[in-house]
Amino acid sequence: MLILGGILALKKLEKLLHPDSVAIIGASPDKKKVGYAVLRNMVYSGFKGRLYAINPKAAQYGEIEGVKVFTNISEIPDTIDLAVVCIPARFIPSLMDELGKKDVKYAAIITAGFKETGTEGAKLEQQIVDVANKYGIRIVGPNILGVIDTSAPMNASFAERSPIKGEIAFLSQSGALLTGILDWSRAEGIGYSSFVSLGNKADLDETDFIEALADDEHTLAILAYLESINRGKEFIEVCKEVTRRKPVIVIKSGRSEAGSKAASSHTGSMTGADTTYDVAFEKCGVIRADNAQELFDMAFAFSYMPIPKGNKIAIITNAGGPGILATDEAERNGLKLATLSSEFKEQLREFLPPAANFNNPIDALGTAQAEDYGRVIELALKEEEVDGVIVILTPQAMTEGQETADKIVEIRKKYPDKPVISIFIGGEILGPSIYFLKKHRIPCYPHPERGVKAMAALVEYARKREKPLDDDIPNLVRDKEKVRKIFDKVKSEKRFNLLGTEAIEVAVAYGIRTPPTRLARSKEEAGIFAEEIGFPIVMKITSPDIVHKTDIGGVKLGIQSKEEAINTYVEIIENAKKHHPNAQILAVDIQKMESVGRELIVGSMKDPQFGSLVMVGMGGVYANFFKDVAFGLAPLTKREAEKMLEQTKVYSLLKGVRGEKPSDIESVIDTLLRIALLVNDFHEIKELDINPFFVYEENQGISALDVKITLNKIE
Amino acid sequence: MLILGGILALKKLEKLLHPDSVAIIGASPDKKKVGYAVLRNMVYSGFKGRLYAINPKAAQYGEIEGVKVFTNISEIPDTIDLAVVCIPARFIPSLMDELGKKDVKYAAIITAGFKETGTEGAKLEQQIVDVANKYGIRIVGPNILGVIDTSAPMNASFAERSPIKGEIAFLSQSGALLTGILDWSRAEGIGYSSFVSLGNKADLDETDFIEALADDEHTLAILAYLESINRGKEFIEVCKEVTRRKPVIVIKSGRSEAGSKAASSHTGSMTGADTTYDVAFEKCGVIRADNAQELFDMAFAFSYMPIPKGNKIAIITNAGGPGILATDEAERNGLKLATLSSEFKEQLREFLPPAANFNNPIDALGTAQAEDYGRVIELALKEEEVDGVIVILTPQAMTEGQETADKIVEIRKKYPDKPVISIFIGGEILGPSIYFLKKHRIPCYPHPERGVKAMAALVEYARKREKPLDDDIPNLVRDKEKVRKIFDKVKSEKRFNLLGTEAIEVAVAYGIRTPPTRLARSKEEAGIFAEEIGFPIVMKITSPDIVHKTDIGGVKLGIQSKEEAINTYVEIIENAKKHHPNAQILAVDIQKMESVGRELIVGSMKDPQFGSLVMVGMGGVYANFFKDVAFGLAPLTKREAEKMLEQTKVYSLLKGVRGEKPSDIESVIDTLLRIALLVNDFHEIKELDINPFFVYEENQGISALDVKITLNKIE
Repeated sequence: MLILGGILALKKLEKLLHPDSVAIIGASPDKKKVGYAVLRNMVYSGFKGRLYAINPKAAQYGEIEGVKVFTNISEIPDTIDLAVVCIPARFIPSLMDELGKKDVKYAAIITAGFKETGTEGAKLEQQIVDVANKYGIRIVGPNILGVIDTSAPMNASFAERSPIKGEIAFLSQSGALLTGILDWSRAEGIGYSSFVSLGNKADLDETDFIEALADDEHTLAILAYLESINRGKEFIEVCKEVTRRKPVIVIKSGRSEAGSKAASSHTGSMTGADTTYDVAFEKCGVIRADNAQELFDMAFAFSYMPIPKGNKIAIITNAGGPGILATDEAERNGLKLATLSSEFKEQLREFLPPAANFNNPIDALGTAQAEDYGRVIELALKEEEVDGVIVILTPQAMTEGQETADKIVEIRKKYPDKPVISIFIGGEILGPSIYFLKKHRIPCYPHPERGVKAMAALVEYARKREKPLDDDIPNLVRDKEKVRKIFDKVKSEKRFNLLGTEAIEVAVAYGIRTPPTRLARSKEEAGIFAEEIGFPIVMKITSPDIVHKTDIGGVKLGIQSKEEAINTYVEIIENAKKHHPNAQILAVDIQKMESVGRELIVGSMKDPQFGSLVMVGMGGVYANFFKDVAFGLAPLTKREAEKMLEQTKVYSLLKGVRGEKPSDIESVIDTLLRIALLVNDFHEIKELDINPFFVYEENQGISALDVKITLNKIE
Repeated sequence: MLILGGILALKKLEKLLHPDSVAIIGASPDKKKVGYAVLRNMVYSGFKGRLYAINPKAAQYGEIEGVKVFTNISEIPDTIDLAVVCIPARFIPSLMDELGKKDVKYAAIITAGFKETGTEGAKLEQQIVDVANKYGIRIVGPNILGVIDTSAPMNASFAERSPIKGEIAFLSQSGALLTGILDWSRAEGIGYSSFVSLGNKADLDETDFIEALADDEHTLAILAYLESINRGKEFIEVCKEVTRRKPVIVIKSGRSEAGSKAASSHTGSMTGADTTYDVAFEKCGVIRADNAQELFDMAFAFSYMPIPKGNKIAIITNAGGPGILATDEAERNGLKLATLSSEFKEQLREFLPPAANFNNPIDALGTAQAEDYGRVIELALKEEEVDGVIVILTPQAMTEGQETADKIVEIRKKYPDKPVISIFIGGEILGPSIYFLKKHRIPCYPHPERGVKAMAALVEYARKREKPLDDDIPNLVRDKEKVRKIFDKVKSEKRFNLLGTEAIEVAVAYGIRTPPTRLARSKEEAGIFAEEIGFPIVMKITSPDIVHKTDIGGVKLGIQSKEEAINTYVEIIENAKKHHPNAQILAVDIQKMESVGRELIVGSMKDPQFGSLVMVGMGGVYANFFKDVAFGLAPLTKREAEKMLEQTKVYSLLKGVRGEKPSDIESVIDTLLRIALLVNDFHEIKELDINPFFVYEENQGISALDVKITLNKIE
């Protein structure tokens, strides 16, 4: 608890995770009912606060499991921090009113039958939220397994058993997965600080809990199983800050709602179903686990081990094969095998047999005793070059499993700043020492790859945590007013696709260089504008109804004279009419023909959860085949824009290869920042494409040849 | 055993894996010695044949563990099928002589201290092999844990325990990994038919054992941990045949010796360290596991389940979250969720609650009882559309773990042709039912992804097994004599790089279309040849010492007249002299300038294990950036060449996109076949590059503009 300005300021969700008083609404003596299970769990969890039961048959029951029963919450002669709700859904709206009057802070609504069942349920859920908002009650759920906190301690769930006490917080959008993981974890010896079922997330969601658990001293790592993220932007803001203090590891299932199905733009068609989540997680330092096995393998390492300084590891083994497997996996996961000093090797030679391998991975041979392991591990941890140690043991004739485990536990304590991960390949013989290691907080894995991946996760987190704090979002000069006016006009005409010249005007207002472009509405205008701009020019059909201009003969290049411009105007309009007899507007863009630069594609696409994605990558006719693109989330910092570009393969071309001069990378970065500002300033932009986008040699700038902007149909 | 032509023909390695009589050379009563451990294991393995011990102190010992001891193998009044050797390395050469005289068939040499220790050891190893070859003794090892066969039964190893009897054969190049896996498998309940330590593979290797185990009725799946493959071509031939009968799953560690480090060709620089193994495994139907966890997860499925007909699965769950995770993983691994018939859904509605999900993945809800599970599983197995079923269970309040496991075991027996994989997420509560499932031969996994991947492996094997038998290698018309002469000339001049015109002659001899090309050794010749060929022409410096021709001004395009050709000759030679004053030969290729086609790159590179890799992919200046290439192993069948091309992204361009005409794909395939024949006919070809390689529109053929061929330095 913090004392702020004289008032007692509670940590976020403090009275939910560590309540002083809890009332179970719908507590029951019937052992088959959820209302009994919750009460039993609360009683046996060791909860030290005040506990009350609510049931209309209070008079009949008197007490359940030693807990006094009241007919109604208003009767309780005490304040209530948390109400755990197990009564049928239809009674909950009026209950919320009672809770509000009693000034209850939190309601964990276990009951199902809401949004997950359809529109009727969704209505009921909204009703509950409305009442809760009125009184300022915060809701977990509905449709949850419950909330468990082992440091409180408190088990406000209907889970059959309690998790072991530990340092991992686990949030799950699937209650059933929680029950499975709980049961599995007890057998595996994995402990938890908090175990929270998020359910329908009618009010409190993953972002709230991540923020709260960041301040929970009992939690070393936050894990989450998520099917969706409710408030993408807040999620990013919160996680950005939290991941500097403790790791957040997420397994995200299902497909992104953004999807790539409905997209008509290039940017859209290049966005994979899950791109946004990957980009968002990267932006805020969240580690994404590919599957449940990996999630818990990582959690193990994070809750027991320090974060390494770098990616250089030493591998110590008593068998060559597993050492090679570990080395392969280390390379695959961006770990480096530390180069060991000659002093180190000399010291090894003093006690290891000459046939041993003194290079990394260090093979102490099958004859290695616990004493040998101890000395090698300690020497490795002392090496400055070594950021972390992986110990592999196979059960050979002379192997001392238990004694080796003892050594690991003992030495690890002397070097608290470097992680030690163990891989004991065995079961019957090595089983007891594996159990011992886990009990003494040494992560232990049955196969080389799993242990190495866990080490790699520690290193990945170190990298994410250490990366320089983002600079500010650059506040570049831009003409918002101008863009506002253009969009208003487009909307007033009930259009969603901007004309080419409109889109170019928007780009220009945001400082993005485009070739001089005019809209000709007659062949006469075509001639005049062409002369004004100067030859050679390009002419393109423009109509809100025509998307594929080239395919219908709507684009002509290299026009050299006024007369040619006039004739071309007539030809283009004829071609367009042939293919689109009902097109609303038909006019022709007259554009200065630019010299050819290296072709990129730049764009943006709106994501319902996280705001707007910005894209950059290789352009040209075959852009869609190679999909050499990278994404960021608007608004972008300069560093983020640079990183995006660096992720593409085309970046190495931009830097100049095979004797070519480098391209104007600065101008590309500048354009990305300007696009990010544009889509962030105007949320009505659904999609934006600049294709082709030419970048010229260093200091020669860029040119946005064709700009397409589509607005949302509904604001 | 097979009776062939009246003679009793033994199955391959029959008397090694199922010997009638075994002698342990170096058997010892000292419990700390390997010679004791092997004897003890043989005695307690239940071996039913005749067992003998050999020790110079026979008189003193008499019997060890009830086995009679002889001083020398020659004294044994019996034939010996297998000698298990545990005596020091230096005594083994003379021992081999004794074994030979006794007509022993097989020697399993457990002793270490050979090739793995350096040159001296390697010499000793060669000595042993020489003697063995003289007598026709086949050797396993040296440097092995031993050989175990649970159907014999026989445990000729010094492992501390015996594996459980089962249907998986496991070959390992690391003995220590075997001990770890053995210990781990006993705890996990995984059983083995054979357990073979390959050691130094001085004689018998993975290919021999895979061939032998293919005929072993007790083995349903062959697993191997390999660090190298000795006889690549034989491995491919054997596995091609074996994988049609049973799955071969390999985890290959370490990096390919081919490597990409030393390569100077384009093809070489695009070859990843492990490309050859991937290509070889694909060619012969071997499944590659990424890591040990996956290897055994797959093995579980293969030994207990039938191979499905297709990739359409049904997922049945009592919890949404794990169902989604399984669906995600299924999509990632090429499985399809079967579309379920309306009759099927109607039947589900009869007994599942209305809130259940009747589509795939079928969510029977947390209330699902064993009876419900049974009915859904049976209905799903009956559906024609469903090729296999995945059953997910989480331990919820009403869950009947054991009864559900009973149902799965019971129903699975009624539908022996479709695989059923179970995923029970739990440990303490579900533990007993998980144990029950495994005992009753139902693969069971703790996390959705592992179960789904195992199912995907069954489907992958089905695909590999079912693919049409390769056609014959096409025997295209070619002029081997011509090529032989060119290579002989090059070698006689102590060169390794062919001149451009020589390489072009080789290509022409193998029916690969190249532009007319002549070698001009003077400016006069340049003029004459240019006129003969006809303008425009291309002129290129040619010298065995110059690799990067363009960079030194050694290439000139679009020469239009005799005079220009003469001047250009002088200019090119001057440029070359400036950069390479010591170049051996300096001349200029005069080549007809071809019209520009779509640019591909085609090449070949020799691999020490598997023969020659053939490559095809996107060409052009940026080929190295996109590495859009695919590989095959020579010689190629037509189907293989087609498949290579189909694997590239550029293939979709060749088929014609955006209104372009399709390219002459047939001619590309033809070229690949011809290159494969060339490198297969002439093993001295180290590297071959055709770059650029133009392909024109359909029926317009190809043109190999520049051909580079490098020969091996030593034959």
